[in-house]
Amino acid sequence: MAVYTEVTDEDLDAFLAPYGLGQVLAFKGIAEGVQNSNFLLTVESEAEAGTNYILTLYEHGIEEEDLPFFIGLMDHLAARGITCPQPVHTRSGESLGQLNGRHAALVTFLQGRSIRRPSVDHCREVGAALAKLHLAGQDFAGTRANGLGPDGWQKLWAACEAQADNAPGAAQAAAALPDLLAAWPAPGSLPTGVIHADLFPDNVFFIGDRLSGLLDFYFACTDMLAYDLAITMNAWVFEIDGSFNVTKARALVEGYQSIRKLETAEVESLPVLARGAAMRFLLTRIYDYLNQVEGALVTVKDPAEYAAKLRFHLGVADASAYGL
Amino acid sequence: MAVYTEVTDEDLDAFLAPYGLGQVLAFKGIAEGVQNSNFLLTVESEAEAGTNYILTLYEHGIEEEDLPFFIGLMDHLAARGITCPQPVHTRSGESLGQLNGRHAALVTFLQGRSIRRPSVDHCREVGAALAKLHLAGQDFAGTRANGLGPDGWQKLWAACEAQADNAPGAAQAAAALPDLLAAWPAPGSLPTGVIHADLFPDNVFFIGDRLSGLLDFYFACTDMLAYDLAITMNAWVFEIDGSFNVTKARALVEGYQSIRKLETAEVESLPVLARGAAMRFLLTRIYDYLNQVEGALVTVKDPAEYAAKLRFHLGVADASAYGL
Repeated sequence: MAVYTEVTDEDLDAFLAPYGLGQVLAFKGIAEGVQNSNFLLTVESEAEAGTNYILTLYEHGIEEEDLPFFIGLMDHLAARGITCPQPVHTRSGESLGQLNGRHAALVTFLQGRSIRRPSVDHCREVGAALAKLHLAGQDFAGTRANGLGPDGWQKLWAACEAQADNAPGAAQAAAALPDLLAAWPAPGSLPTGVIHADLFPDNVFFIGDRLSGLLDFYFACTDMLAYDLAITMNAWVFEIDGSFNVTKARALVEGYQSIRKLETAEVESLPVLARGAAMRFLLTRIYDYLNQVEGALVTVKDPAEYAAKLRFHLGVADASAYGL
Repeated sequence: MAVYTEVTDEDLDAFLAPYGLGQVLAFKGIAEGVQNSNFLLTVESEAEAGTNYILTLYEHGIEEEDLPFFIGLMDHLAARGITCPQPVHTRSGESLGQLNGRHAALVTFLQGRSIRRPSVDHCREVGAALAKLHLAGQDFAGTRANGLGPDGWQKLWAACEAQADNAPGAAQAAAALPDLLAAWPAPGSLPTGVIHADLFPDNVFFIGDRLSGLLDFYFACTDMLAYDLAITMNAWVFEIDGSFNVTKARALVEGYQSIRKLETAEVESLPVLARGAAMRFLLTRIYDYLNQVEGALVTVKDPAEYAAKLRFHLGVADASAYGL
């Protein structure tokens, strides 16, 4: 939760000039984003209060060559009716610029707020939204390998192994990783396409109980669609006390299937995909735990939460445990 | 620049209920404020994009008993046409509530953005706005002693003296303090009233070249009006290279006098008031420099900047140096 870069009024005006927007009415750093700095920008428009945008400066952790994929994906999804931040283009058609030596993009402002304790209905809405995203992404031309798939897990583990005794959950990761790698579905064996890959409650906005938008596409990549459902399940249906709420899981899957029916192979793979999803977040959290930066503005998340989720999935016999 | 407190959707809804506003459309932590956490709140309204507010949680450095003064002052000034954040009242008339164990207030959203490099015209606008604020505050019933006046300087110096060798500018502060205390105008000798006491460029919003509002009244207090002009002069008319821009000083004073004519005694006191204003910020910066908190989210400002300003004012013979 940070703003890493200060943007002066002169630099902002220079950046905005090619967009041909109205006069700046407000510009405030907002406390969102780990890999970037975000600003609320309000410009004069026909609407009395002006029109809001989000200006994002890409700080670190995002590869420059991936930015056209992320921006192009948001453009593509928004054009297909997915409510997500929509990149704004300059008069000459550019959607990526430079500001304070960083890559920067201007996107539309999404109304809504994230929900800390999702209800069963929220889970159903998220499931449906995820399926819509998968369908809308099917004809997106861009591809991006998932850097946090099985190869990524092995790299992360290799980087952590020597200090693993110092991190909660590391023993569980080490014990489960070989079987998981062996059981992981082969490329092409399950329906594949654009996945969000990080659809946590933080990244879903609601207005009241109505889902109003999806955001933060900076982990999006090309991978198995059902793996995205498994990631989302891990993020949404466990209670704060660690218990698995099967009613929420069922609602999530029902919401998903109301839009896109899972294939039999996907249903059968759900337990291993759920283990993989838990492993992915367990490993990145262990890595972040072991590589904490003094004075960083980001709170390190507890790996133990995902070790417990992994343990749950290891005890699952088949997809019926998830309400299927 | 920080958000110290996370506010959950449930806690926010409970806090907002007594205000009787529309449904929440957006809620974002914003990177403003050192002594408090600020959030942009958008609620449903007749305006298509909703209506914006700022929700402030008072974190530290603000005395609880001062909050009614600050809130009451903003209410008073807004009612007299000063564009400043206007406290929103609950249906039962309260303008201060509790959220996450902190005192909290909801105020209207002020359009505009602060200017990093003020022009001569900006200085003139700020001078006029300061004088309007002084006039509008004349019939405000509340009073608050200036904790950062001569008594405060002596306390700050006493707290810093032992480690003074470690702080830039401390030698200048020590050398100038006794004469300054001796020369300081006696209470009641100059026109007194509500002063802003911290009208830095950060705290003044412009839309284009038009001043759109004043903010951050959390140093406001009862003191000599011309001292506020001296603080504002210190904050606005020195260039980044340290030079004193007398054209900007003249514009600031002319703007001020276009609304409120300075008395002869105020003009004659301006050099000592300017020294006092420089001393006040020099001492708080020395204090903050010597008491840096590990991992704090706030950048410590350089005391040397105000030591140099103090030096400039020590060389001033009379108010003609300020363009009067």
